[in-house]
Amino acid sequence: MFKNIDIDVAFGLLNEKIKKIDNYEEIDIVDGLGRILAEDIYSPINQPNFSKSAMDGFAFVEKDLEINGIFKVQDVIYAGDNYIKEIEKNKCCKIMTGAKIPNNCDIVIKKEQCRYIDENTIEIMEYTPKMKNICYEGEEYTKGILLLEKGEKLDYVALGILSSVGIKKIKVRKRLKIALLVTGDEVVPYNEKVIEGKIFDANGVLLSQRLKSFGYDLEIMEYYGDEIEKIRNRMFEIIKKVDLIITTGGVSVGDKDIFHQVLENKDIERVFWRVNFKPGTPVMFSILEDKPILSLSGNPFASLVSFEILGREILGILDGDDSIKPRKISGIIEKEYDKTSDKIRFVRGKYQGGKVIVPEGLGTSSAFRSFQKCNCLIEIPKNMKVTKGSNVEVWLI
Amino acid sequence: MFKNIDIDVAFGLLNEKIKKIDNYEEIDIVDGLGRILAEDIYSPINQPNFSKSAMDGFAFVEKDLEINGIFKVQDVIYAGDNYIKEIEKNKCCKIMTGAKIPNNCDIVIKKEQCRYIDENTIEIMEYTPKMKNICYEGEEYTKGILLLEKGEKLDYVALGILSSVGIKKIKVRKRLKIALLVTGDEVVPYNEKVIEGKIFDANGVLLSQRLKSFGYDLEIMEYYGDEIEKIRNRMFEIIKKVDLIITTGGVSVGDKDIFHQVLENKDIERVFWRVNFKPGTPVMFSILEDKPILSLSGNPFASLVSFEILGREILGILDGDDSIKPRKISGIIEKEYDKTSDKIRFVRGKYQGGKVIVPEGLGTSSAFRSFQKCNCLIEIPKNMKVTKGSNVEVWLI
Repeated sequence: MFKNIDIDVAFGLLNEKIKKIDNYEEIDIVDGLGRILAEDIYSPINQPNFSKSAMDGFAFVEKDLEINGIFKVQDVIYAGDNYIKEIEKNKCCKIMTGAKIPNNCDIVIKKEQCRYIDENTIEIMEYTPKMKNICYEGEEYTKGILLLEKGEKLDYVALGILSSVGIKKIKVRKRLKIALLVTGDEVVPYNEKVIEGKIFDANGVLLSQRLKSFGYDLEIMEYYGDEIEKIRNRMFEIIKKVDLIITTGGVSVGDKDIFHQVLENKDIERVFWRVNFKPGTPVMFSILEDKPILSLSGNPFASLVSFEILGREILGILDGDDSIKPRKISGIIEKEYDKTSDKIRFVRGKYQGGKVIVPEGLGTSSAFRSFQKCNCLIEIPKNMKVTKGSNVEVWLI
Repeated sequence: MFKNIDIDVAFGLLNEKIKKIDNYEEIDIVDGLGRILAEDIYSPINQPNFSKSAMDGFAFVEKDLEINGIFKVQDVIYAGDNYIKEIEKNKCCKIMTGAKIPNNCDIVIKKEQCRYIDENTIEIMEYTPKMKNICYEGEEYTKGILLLEKGEKLDYVALGILSSVGIKKIKVRKRLKIALLVTGDEVVPYNEKVIEGKIFDANGVLLSQRLKSFGYDLEIMEYYGDEIEKIRNRMFEIIKKVDLIITTGGVSVGDKDIFHQVLENKDIERVFWRVNFKPGTPVMFSILEDKPILSLSGNPFASLVSFEILGREILGILDGDDSIKPRKISGIIEKEYDKTSDKIRFVRGKYQGGKVIVPEGLGTSSAFRSFQKCNCLIEIPKNMKVTKGSNVEVWLI
C-alpha cells in the first residue's frame, strides 16, 4: 500500500487500477438528458428531408420568368402537403413557408413582390434572381453523416437533433451504481433524534446530493456505527450490486479509525492511504472484486474536498466521462492567505472572471457552512504563503 | 396589442403582466435539490452542538498542568459517548477526535505529545498552551442564526447544512406547471412515421428537454395540426391546470399562421406580437386567466432563441428565481460578422474566457445542429457589421 503520496501519484493509481464500466441500455430519447451516448449516430435522412419554400410566396420554374410577368396560380401548397404535380408552363403555385416545392420549381418569389390581377392570376412586381428562397434538401446535412459521437453527453440540443431525424431509441451507458456507507458511533441521520455527545450527519446528504447533481442516484445509502465486521461483511455483499463504494469516517489513526481493520482482508487490495493534501489527508483507496472503494474522512468539508478531487476522478474513469473529472484553471487571489502547511491545502473559494476570493466564516475541516455558493477549491502550495494578487491554481467544482 | 417592440419593452411588459406564483409544499430535504426555499431557516442548534476534541489525545483541566506533568488516565472517551463525569484533580481522560469533552475540560493535548508511563498513567512531553485543540460549542454558528434565506435555490451544500442541524422537512415553492403545444400540419412527432412533405418535430423535444435541464417537467405536451378551434378550446381547458402555456408554430403572417385567430378571443389579452430581434421575431405574448401564453415561431433555432430570451424571463418571474432569467455579459468576438439586419440578430456562439466564437455550420433559423455545444447567443446590434476583435454583448445560455 502506498502512503503519503502526491495528488498526481494518486491520480495515476486510480487510472491504473480502475476499469471503465461498459454496461449499456436502450432508452427513448426523451429519457436521455445527461446520459452518455454509447453508439455513433448517423443521420438516417437528409436535413431538410425535402426542398421547401423559405417564404410565403409563389413557386415558379425559373426559365418561365424570362417570358413574361403574368402567371396563372395553378394550386396552393401548404406546409405538410405532399404536392406531386409539376408546375405547368406559365403557371405558378402559391406556396407557404415550409411547404415542399413542386419537383420542377427552382425559385420562390416572396408574396410581397407579387400582386393578384384577378382571383387566379398574379403579376410579378419585382424580384431578385439570385434569391431562390428555397431551403434545399440536405443543405444542413446529408443522410449518413455522423451526427453524434459515441461518448457524447446528451443535452437538449443533441436530443432535439435526434428528434428532428426521427430517431426514437438510443443506446446509452447505464448509470453507475454507487453505494454510500456513512460510519461513526457519533453520527445520527438527520431524520432521527440526536442525543448528547452525538451529531447530526452531514456527509450522507452532502455526498448523495452532490452525486445527484451529476445525475447519479445512490443505489444504497446506509449508516453504521464503528462496527468492523458488520461493515466489512456488508461491503462484500454490496460490491456485487454496485460499481463503486464510498465510505465516510474511520480513516485516521485513532482507536476508532476502524477502516484499517475493515479493509484488512485477503480479498481487498489496499492501494493507497493518505494523500498529500488537506483537509482530507487520510483518504483511502482500495479495490475489491475489481471495483473501487473510496474511504473518505468523516469531517464534512474534508470528505467533500477529497470527493471533489479523487471521487470525481473515479467517476470520470468508471463512466468514461471526462466532464466529471476535476478540472483546474488559474486565477488571481484577491486577499493573502498566510497559513502554511507541509501539504497542499485546499481552501474554499469563489471564482469569477479570473479572480478568486476566500469567503468569510469558519474554514475548518468540519465546518462547511462557509462553503455555500463556493465554486472552487483554491490550491495553496505546500510550505508557501500566498500573497494578495498572486496567481493560484483553482479547482472548479 | 404592442407590435414590433424592442427587447426592453418586451421585458417590461412581461414583468408588468405576469404574477409570481405563490404555491408551496413541504418536502423531505433529500428531495430538495434545485428547489426554491419558501421560508427562512434558523438553526435549531449550536454548531457544533457540544464542545468536542479536535484531536486524538488527552483531556485536561488546564490549571492542573501547572502542578506537574504526570496524570492518571481516568477514562477513555470516544466520539459519540455522552461522558458526564468531570475530570478529577490531577487526572485526565484519553479522548478521541470528535468526542464530547468533559464539562470541566479546557485543553486537549495531542497524543503525540504525551507518553504512557504505565498502563493508566501518562506523562506530558511537551505542549503549546495556546493550542486548546477543542472545537467549541457554537463556534461555527449559534442557535437561532439565519442559516438559509427564503428564495434560496437549494444545492447540495445547503441540503447538507439542513441535515447537519437535524432539519427534516422544508417548505419549498411548488414546481411550475407548464404545457407545451407543438403545432403545424407539417410536424410529425419523432416517434411516429414521417410521410412525404412532412418533417420530424424538433421543438417538442428541444423545449421540453431545455425545461427539464432547469428542473421543470412538462405537465402537458401535445401536438396539433393547424386546428384553430381545437387548439383554442384546449388552451381554455389546460390554462386551469398549468401556470404557463408555451406554443410553437403559426405566429408569422402566412395563411396558416393560425395563432392570430387562435388568440382572437374576448378572454385573451394579446399583449405583444413581434419583438425586434431575429430569428424568432414573430413571437407572441398573451394572457389568459391571468396566466402567460408564450407563442414561439415554428423554426427550431428561432423558437430556441425566443425561449432563451423571453421564455426564461417568464419562468424567472413566475418562480421568483432570478437565476433562470437571461443574463448578458460582454465578450470579444474572434471573427467578423458581416451580415447586417434592421433588427438585433442573435448569433449562436461559444464563449470562453472573455472570447466568443461563432461555430461552423449552417446558421439559419431552422438549422440548429451547429448550436450544439454553444453556450451563448451573441447580440449583433441592428444595422451594424461587427468586426473581428469587437466587444459584443453575449447572452449566456
